[in-house]
Amino acid sequence: MAVISPSRRVRRTPFSDGVEAAGVKGYTVYNRMLLPTVFESVEADYHHLKRDVQVWDVACERQVQLQGPDAARLLQMLTPRNVARMGQDRCFYVPVVDQNGGMLNDPVALQAGEDTYWISIADSDLLLWAKGIAAANDLNVAVTEPDVSPLAVQGPKADALMARVFGEAVTNLRFFGMARFAFQDRNLIVARSGYSKQGGFEIYVEGSELGMPLWNALFEAGEDLNVRAGCPNLIERIEGGLLSYGNDMTDENSPLECGLRKFVDADVLDQCYGGRALREEMEAGSKRKICAVSIEGDLPPCDRAWPVLADGTQVGLITSSARSPDFGTNVAIAMLDRDYWNAGTRLEVQTQDGMARAQVEPKFWI
Amino acid sequence: MAVISPSRRVRRTPFSDGVEAAGVKGYTVYNRMLLPTVFESVEADYHHLKRDVQVWDVACERQVQLQGPDAARLLQMLTPRNVARMGQDRCFYVPVVDQNGGMLNDPVALQAGEDTYWISIADSDLLLWAKGIAAANDLNVAVTEPDVSPLAVQGPKADALMARVFGEAVTNLRFFGMARFAFQDRNLIVARSGYSKQGGFEIYVEGSELGMPLWNALFEAGEDLNVRAGCPNLIERIEGGLLSYGNDMTDENSPLECGLRKFVDADVLDQCYGGRALREEMEAGSKRKICAVSIEGDLPPCDRAWPVLADGTQVGLITSSARSPDFGTNVAIAMLDRDYWNAGTRLEVQTQDGMARAQVEPKFWI
Repeated sequence: MAVISPSRRVRRTPFSDGVEAAGVKGYTVYNRMLLPTVFESVEADYHHLKRDVQVWDVACERQVQLQGPDAARLLQMLTPRNVARMGQDRCFYVPVVDQNGGMLNDPVALQAGEDTYWISIADSDLLLWAKGIAAANDLNVAVTEPDVSPLAVQGPKADALMARVFGEAVTNLRFFGMARFAFQDRNLIVARSGYSKQGGFEIYVEGSELGMPLWNALFEAGEDLNVRAGCPNLIERIEGGLLSYGNDMTDENSPLECGLRKFVDADVLDQCYGGRALREEMEAGSKRKICAVSIEGDLPPCDRAWPVLADGTQVGLITSSARSPDFGTNVAIAMLDRDYWNAGTRLEVQTQDGMARAQVEPKFWI
Repeated sequence: MAVISPSRRVRRTPFSDGVEAAGVKGYTVYNRMLLPTVFESVEADYHHLKRDVQVWDVACERQVQLQGPDAARLLQMLTPRNVARMGQDRCFYVPVVDQNGGMLNDPVALQAGEDTYWISIADSDLLLWAKGIAAANDLNVAVTEPDVSPLAVQGPKADALMARVFGEAVTNLRFFGMARFAFQDRNLIVARSGYSKQGGFEIYVEGSELGMPLWNALFEAGEDLNVRAGCPNLIERIEGGLLSYGNDMTDENSPLECGLRKFVDADVLDQCYGGRALREEMEAGSKRKICAVSIEGDLPPCDRAWPVLADGTQVGLITSSARSPDFGTNVAIAMLDRDYWNAGTRLEVQTQDGMARAQVEPKFWI
């Protein structure tokens, strides 16, 4: 592939100097910001992530801040998940849908203060949807992008590393629990969360000037833990069934199709855009859903959706795929029609290099 | 810089096969789609663009389609330019602003049919703002992304090349004029427009399957015109003062600050979001504006906004910069405070590699 050209529009992050010094080899662009994709190699990074601990520049998970008397009301208008029970000690994964129930983003939301929420977004300008809804409803809320950049610490040694920098108390956080912890003269929100199945934390770095001091502190504290710069790993996240907005789902998919039924609460569907469409889909049943699929053979990079065929008829799409060293197959995420989503169903996949044989798996690999 | 990693999320275009065969060396990501940035070199591409003719994959200028009885009303809610006079023979450059008058996009809009408008967007999810405004106002309009991908033909020989593929009549189009022209069994919208000052056209390719046939037809017809694959050229567009959303302006800038006063019509400010803020700014005068600035010395790539200083105080930002072979200086675009925007003002620029001397120019270079 070609190199990526520098410009202000494709933004650097508060951690870019550290990422470059660590020898980043590949990038993608996510929310118009640089997101590293490779350091040593995707496979070497994968083995290291499962064994040690990595620090990830995920500043591209930009925050959409809702602030003001109507902030909670606006948040509930955006998502079919009941956010009234969130509180300030837990973050919530919240599907955000449009007026037809189509996915606009699948962020993590948290309450950062009284009347202040942060929505840590996947790759779409959720800010514009939220601003449009707020403006047109004349809500008393400011919708802005604050200077907050997440830094993730992921891997089996994440607890050990985090304890050295933030104190032992940080290891008491439960999954998706959050609290503020001191770093230098600030109190930063830290959550037990992140885009891997290896465990770890996300630190909401409030103030770009803190970026490199925190990056350096983590690397200095973790030398004997073999800490390295890392990034969301394509193989590991497919094995774990971690969905990627824009890859595995778009605004043509409902949260029900995406396996997110447990984040849709019937008692708030009257308060959110798209609630009626979701209620209808719950009554009628979904026509397709996301599944784990294994694919045989040597495959090209999945840089476009691959049609999935059964007896020559298209019955779905492969949206992400990678060769898994640990499971000895190509692990993949697919959106499959109802009659073809049962485990064991044999299918064919049409890649840019030809056809491949595939099978629906009972669940993701980890 | 590092390479760009393949994924479905960073979308290929209907012309990507042609772009790759032509030896693309650099990409950026624009509206989550690949946009070529370099073929031979930025400087060689620049000279060729000014001398011959190039075919540009600008499919990343995605269309936001407004369709339905309220389409025209919605379009007017999005922009402070009066769109009632647009008609079906001209496209309009339309600033789109939020409720505070901040720029959300600077697209080109056209009427593609009765009750159907296409907005050819710069790099932000304008679809989400438009959908939010439509949903919250309960408008009778569908806001979607159609399968339409612009292909640009730019350079002094553009008329000659286009006449061979679409017939002589296409050369009768005036600047920003548009009409439908036959290609194979379709009638495609063609406009005299494009993101260079060398003249040329944009073809709205409706149907991805037409992409490579049209690409190939242009190259076959233009061999003796020295047609090449090209792309928006950083040097040429700065020389010409062509603004780039996300680089030279963001939602923190009003269209008045961006030099777009002539696209703000007082008679429609009551109908669009942000109209009141713009009226107030017109009465009070803008506090800063976009200017042409020349900078001395050898400069690094402008991959972040550079502070502009006068006597040690920040008075603006350089947002785009490149070395111009034809004008023998670094040409740049700046947003400068009121007291410092007069031509001839001497300034200092703080790049990542150190300070450089600069001067405000009376106008852009071409």
